Amino acid sequence: MAQMRNRRVVLAARPAGEPADTDFRLEETNIPSPGDGQVLLRTLYLSLDPYMRGRMNAGPSYAPPVQIGEVMEGGAVSEVVESKSTQWRPGDLVRSYTGWQEYALAEGNGLERIDPHVAPVSTALGVLGMPGLTAYTGLLNIGQPKAGETVVVAAASGAVGSVVGQIAKIKGCHAVGVAGNQQKCDFVRNTLGFDACVNHRSEKCAEELRAACPKGIDVYFENVGGRVLEAVVPLLNLFGRVPVCGQIAHYSAVALPKGPDHTPLLMSAILTKRLTFRGFIVTDFASQKAEFERDMAAWLHEKKVKYREDIVDGLETAVGAFRGLLLGQNFGKLLVRVARQG
Amino acid sequence: MAQMRNRRVVLAARPAGEPADTDFRLEETNIPSPGDGQVLLRTLYLSLDPYMRGRMNAGPSYAPPVQIGEVMEGGAVSEVVESKSTQWRPGDLVRSYTGWQEYALAEGNGLERIDPHVAPVSTALGVLGMPGLTAYTGLLNIGQPKAGETVVVAAASGAVGSVVGQIAKIKGCHAVGVAGNQQKCDFVRNTLGFDACVNHRSEKCAEELRAACPKGIDVYFENVGGRVLEAVVPLLNLFGRVPVCGQIAHYSAVALPKGPDHTPLLMSAILTKRLTFRGFIVTDFASQKAEFERDMAAWLHEKKVKYREDIVDGLETAVGAFRGLLLGQNFGKLLVRVARQG
Repeated sequence: MAQMRNRRVVLAARPAGEPADTDFRLEETNIPSPGDGQVLLRTLYLSLDPYMRGRMNAGPSYAPPVQIGEVMEGGAVSEVVESKSTQWRPGDLVRSYTGWQEYALAEGNGLERIDPHVAPVSTALGVLGMPGLTAYTGLLNIGQPKAGETVVVAAASGAVGSVVGQIAKIKGCHAVGVAGNQQKCDFVRNTLGFDACVNHRSEKCAEELRAACPKGIDVYFENVGGRVLEAVVPLLNLFGRVPVCGQIAHYSAVALPKGPDHTPLLMSAILTKRLTFRGFIVTDFASQKAEFERDMAAWLHEKKVKYREDIVDGLETAVGAFRGLLLGQNFGKLLVRVARQG
Repeated sequence: MAQMRNRRVVLAARPAGEPADTDFRLEETNIPSPGDGQVLLRTLYLSLDPYMRGRMNAGPSYAPPVQIGEVMEGGAVSEVVESKSTQWRPGDLVRSYTGWQEYALAEGNGLERIDPHVAPVSTALGVLGMPGLTAYTGLLNIGQPKAGETVVVAAASGAVGSVVGQIAKIKGCHAVGVAGNQQKCDFVRNTLGFDACVNHRSEKCAEELRAACPKGIDVYFENVGGRVLEAVVPLLNLFGRVPVCGQIAHYSAVALPKGPDHTPLLMSAILTKRLTFRGFIVTDFASQKAEFERDMAAWLHEKKVKYREDIVDGLETAVGAFRGLLLGQNFGKLLVRVARQG
């Protein structure tokens, strides 16, 4: 091991607006050795997720930001290479939060074991991982969909949105997706089984959404903000529920959109239609993880939930892939295959 | 009775922006006679409330609008003058929804009896009526204040806001009001017992609110919108709750405010601080009325809740008083004394 080197991506500068290549730096360091209770991990898959944009800003969003010069944060599926923990042996597969790097030390008691017999290990970062749990808990706890109701979700071909719509179908709802091109919309309808999917880049997006939701919208799972939210608000039914999970349309904004100020329209809709808007992050519902994993494993087994991955190869592709994610260029759950197993 | 006449205020035109005198018409009609099961009521007090502005618009807000030429809607305390209902006798006092008029027919089984020994009968339209129930149910069900938390309410000297802050104090919270002049702020602090009250017409309103809420804001009971909401959002704590009860700053708006569009700021706050915004109207919690009446009667008796009424005399003053209400010119629960009892 001594001659091997670790590669990692650190935050070089805080992005102003859309992240640029120069906001990151690929570094080489020595591979460290585990201390007592620690393991050395080799990253197999790195998860790329929209929330990471918030971590690059100076202000706190959910959590303190990544510091300049620090390794970018992120979830990973890794293999234990060397263990000084009684819990782990070389070859064990784990989910860790070790970030954008090829090797990492971790405390043995902070890791989650992955069973490769349940599903491909990469799903521990997608449908069986944080994005799946986000969809499941946000939709069921805040959205509270009832059979016959209409559920709308944007970024519908993505890691979270794809699961939201499929759970809505399982619960007997009319599921309508919003996605960024025709190919994604076709996939959402034909493969994932949503009832309809609207292209948000269509000029007639608002009219198409209205046509796809003849009984209005009871649950809007909010991932994006911007013009999709604007099109949704007038269609929300009395007592509609809006789990607020993301605002990807605004993550790289350097200024507020031009006027007029639409805030009174939103507040008036909340008031007169007695809507509930509630923000959440996945850790708010951490206690429901076992229940989620049981349900989702069964749904995968019964083919009631399908998933699509968009995998790029090599840590050096992470920055470009992440930039594409913010622009909606990925198609499915975005992963970096950092190394092959074994 | 035959020679007596009824006077009533009808909606003559839909207001464009702030209501004008010419949007209403004072009419005289004959006093009708009750049919089987009906009573003839003489209005003692008419309640004037901000929600009435929404009833004047063409579109539905909570309910279908008042039609042109129809009597303006509203809650009233009335005396039974003539009864063809076995439930009522002349002299009985009732709460009815008979609108802006001196006399009205009503079905005997649609009325609520008022016990004049509990409190002055006018309170059936205020602290013991719809505004009190609105404050109680919105704060307790949606706001869910816990001892030690900070509760902020705008229109704090008004019918709803004054009760919100006093219940917050009863629940052990730090209660902060927002009101429209120094006299109201003094009343809110010194008589109602709030911990602080900020004048929203002060240039430094946002800074003063921040100073009044050193531990941030856990519950914001939303009555107004506009710049008060803008000042509150940055101060809201993680998991803050916002019962959305009114938006009086916007009721007479003819256009959206100038830009930029602040919607992304609001949505981003909901997302990252995991806030809950929930609209409601008092009828959503109608089942809690008995509990409210029991609690509120006790609080009044113990002097834990105080109230202030702003009473104008004569039905012909209703339009002017209502216009003043929308501009914050009332000081306390606004009532029209239409006739004296007995």
